[in-house]
Amino acid sequence: MQTNEQILSQFESYLAQTDVSTSEPELLYAPIGYSLSGGGKRLRPMLLTLAYGIFKDDIQNAMPAAAAIEVFHNFTLLHDDIMDNSAVRRGKPSVYAKWGQNVAILSGDAMMITAYKLLAGVPAEQLPRILSTFSTMALEVCEGQQYDMDFETKQKVSVVEYMHMIELKTSVLLAGATVIGAMLAGASDDDCRKLHRFGIELGLAFQMQDDLLDSYGDERLGKPIGEDIIEGKMTFLMITAMSRADEPTREKLRALLADKEMDRQQKIQAVKAIYDALDIPHITEQQIGIRFERALSQLDTLSADAERTRQLKEYARSLMGRNF
Amino acid sequence: MQTNEQILSQFESYLAQTDVSTSEPELLYAPIGYSLSGGGKRLRPMLLTLAYGIFKDDIQNAMPAAAAIEVFHNFTLLHDDIMDNSAVRRGKPSVYAKWGQNVAILSGDAMMITAYKLLAGVPAEQLPRILSTFSTMALEVCEGQQYDMDFETKQKVSVVEYMHMIELKTSVLLAGATVIGAMLAGASDDDCRKLHRFGIELGLAFQMQDDLLDSYGDERLGKPIGEDIIEGKMTFLMITAMSRADEPTREKLRALLADKEMDRQQKIQAVKAIYDALDIPHITEQQIGIRFERALSQLDTLSADAERTRQLKEYARSLMGRNF
Repeated sequence: MQTNEQILSQFESYLAQTDVSTSEPELLYAPIGYSLSGGGKRLRPMLLTLAYGIFKDDIQNAMPAAAAIEVFHNFTLLHDDIMDNSAVRRGKPSVYAKWGQNVAILSGDAMMITAYKLLAGVPAEQLPRILSTFSTMALEVCEGQQYDMDFETKQKVSVVEYMHMIELKTSVLLAGATVIGAMLAGASDDDCRKLHRFGIELGLAFQMQDDLLDSYGDERLGKPIGEDIIEGKMTFLMITAMSRADEPTREKLRALLADKEMDRQQKIQAVKAIYDALDIPHITEQQIGIRFERALSQLDTLSADAERTRQLKEYARSLMGRNF
Repeated sequence: MQTNEQILSQFESYLAQTDVSTSEPELLYAPIGYSLSGGGKRLRPMLLTLAYGIFKDDIQNAMPAAAAIEVFHNFTLLHDDIMDNSAVRRGKPSVYAKWGQNVAILSGDAMMITAYKLLAGVPAEQLPRILSTFSTMALEVCEGQQYDMDFETKQKVSVVEYMHMIELKTSVLLAGATVIGAMLAGASDDDCRKLHRFGIELGLAFQMQDDLLDSYGDERLGKPIGEDIIEGKMTFLMITAMSRADEPTREKLRALLADKEMDRQQKIQAVKAIYDALDIPHITEQQIGIRFERALSQLDTLSADAERTRQLKEYARSLMGRNF
């Protein structure tokens, strides 16, 4: 099996081969190239390829599906940035900010079609199943985005509703990557199911970690601390705090979030003081640990040698910034 | 072979079976149901099924692909309405006007994914080819929409550029319908190519006819006469007039289009007077006739009995409002 770096470089070469950014009309295709060259960890293609690698060595055959899922992921970012009115993506102007709304809508559409075009490159006998899995996944990601938007106008969001939303918006795409990797490698239905569950649990852990680092991080995310609090975003921390607080504290949290005049740092400190009093960082750490362990435990019962799951396990650990 | 009415009713039943409009989240799925129940001629599914019917009788097998292409077509309308800022679609509020931009973007995305989900229902052995054909078609439709938007800011659009744009924006979807119908029925490569060409030529004739009826019609389109002139749309008539006029007339046309104060009826009459002087209606009729004949002639050389192409021919004639 290749190293992660080798896999990544193989993936980048494959993606570069499919480059359409100089095609005409320019305003349709240039934003696709811009979006795909924007970097990112290539998390989903890595997961897909590492899941494939548990069962088979010829990882070149995983590249079309890996590219399809990466292009699809970047398409969702492109349209999400319009819906969320986000001007910045990975430290650069978003397609929406750079080219305007209509270009972002249409080149996003073309990008989703491009993802399906890449998917047509998987072996013919596996295509029906993988096409269905991919489309179900894609639809669930849209459901997650809609629930997320619904939350903005909702008075109260429960922890269960929040977990369901992030399962759809984040986990499903990681699970899609791992299960498609397994399917492509001809894994048994049982192993496919386990790798799907692995992706779901990993995604939940990953999203909660993201929420935690936003308020308590060490700038590892490349974002200023407390952005979620300032934006009034519904995060695992906020929703858990809301559900555990007594009514006066809940009122105070709501008032803090609604206060548009308050000094940025003061607001962040005041919200974090409530989080701390309610033990939210610790509860979140616990939940992350539970989900992450559940993810890893799926890999232990696969019908494959432990040696073959090691690379995916270590990759998952590195994602979580954990060396245990 | 069933009658057109029987095919249409079989198609509507199939589409109704796949209805997702009551799924959750409501704001994602209700607009899809609203859009698909909005009527329309079901032109593309009819063409797909009639092309299939030239070679095979079991038209039930054409339904998944017919539904996929209809859902895709309605998806394009949904996003086009955002980009064109259109509040009305088929006499009802557009999804964009009814639910707002974000819902229209996201439910449009879900609709495109739904189209691909339906496509996964075609026989496995034909799926790779049909998925590629469908995606190429879908990408070309996006190219057409981008060229159309590009034209809005362009000083001069040639007849060749205009024909290329409508080939992509309109014809390609009709050609996709007919060629996918033929592929599904196991037609030879040569017959597939001819049915693709049939769709391209029919689409060009159809679009030019649409342009002509907008200025010279008898309200058959359900739109007030002269809407294109008022909106300053680039149509075959306008572009041909621009290319045939001398410079003073061209200036006059430009001034008329730019005049936002002028009385509606006066403007329509003034532009049509120029069209008439330049013989534009007659030239357009001629071009429609040429394209339509080219479309029909493709059907005469298919490796199928003339009797089997009759229904598609008559359907094409009825579309053009022609009884010859």
